[in-house]
Amino acid sequence: MSPLPRFGRIADGPPAPAGGGESFATLLAAGGARVERIASLAQADPPGAWYDQPGDEFVLLLQGAARLGFAGGEERALAPGDWVVIPAGCRHRVAWTDPARETLWLAVHLPPIAGRGAIADQ
Amino acid sequence: MSPLPRFGRIADGPPAPAGGGESFATLLAAGGARVERIASLAQADPPGAWYDQPGDEFVLLLQGAARLGFAGGEERALAPGDWVVIPAGCRHRVAWTDPARETLWLAVHLPPIAGRGAIADQ
Repeated sequence: MSPLPRFGRIADGPPAPAGGGESFATLLAAGGARVERIASLAQADPPGAWYDQPGDEFVLLLQGAARLGFAGGEERALAPGDWVVIPAGCRHRVAWTDPARETLWLAVHLPPIAGRGAIADQ
Repeated sequence: MSPLPRFGRIADGPPAPAGGGESFATLLAAGGARVERIASLAQADPPGAWYDQPGDEFVLLLQGAARLGFAGGEERALAPGDWVVIPAGCRHRVAWTDPARETLWLAVHLPPIAGRGAIADQ
């Protein structure tokens, strides 16, 4: 028998914390890959605190507004429909998300590739 | 040195064929996983022609309107913001996409898992 599909709406999911921050929901995970819904409100990672991941990440902004920061000082504003590929080892942080309305993201974490691990923290 | 991010807009990419059909663009691929942008216009897979994939797929409708068909006869209408998890081995087809405007999808193919037939639990 054919396995059954599963349906959902991206608007449905855990809301961002009312006082600001972010909420995560895994929509699908298999084989070291993961599809995640993120809801953010007034979210900002502490300056100098970098995400540094062992696999590539794909991020699509679906609603709201955000700015991502990258090691080296670049900051990039994102609007709905903008996507970013964040390669393994690319240090990044959420610099800002809209404090007035929820920002929704789809994030896809791809499997780490052997021998291509994260760079040392510095 | 930190690897560089790559930016894009989901609206930018190969348009659907003017006479109807679909166009594919791979935005990121690694470790057996793939993130794909699909643009469809008046697309319908032939009745009885099923996609049957060795890995789970996640599909998000971003713009337009579509109907997916599943083995067993179920047909499901999709609007922007609707997502579907299509487990490995779940036979499916595109039954219809809007003939009046382009339909945009994000599709994520997860790595096949040996000996596995069920979706990851949410």
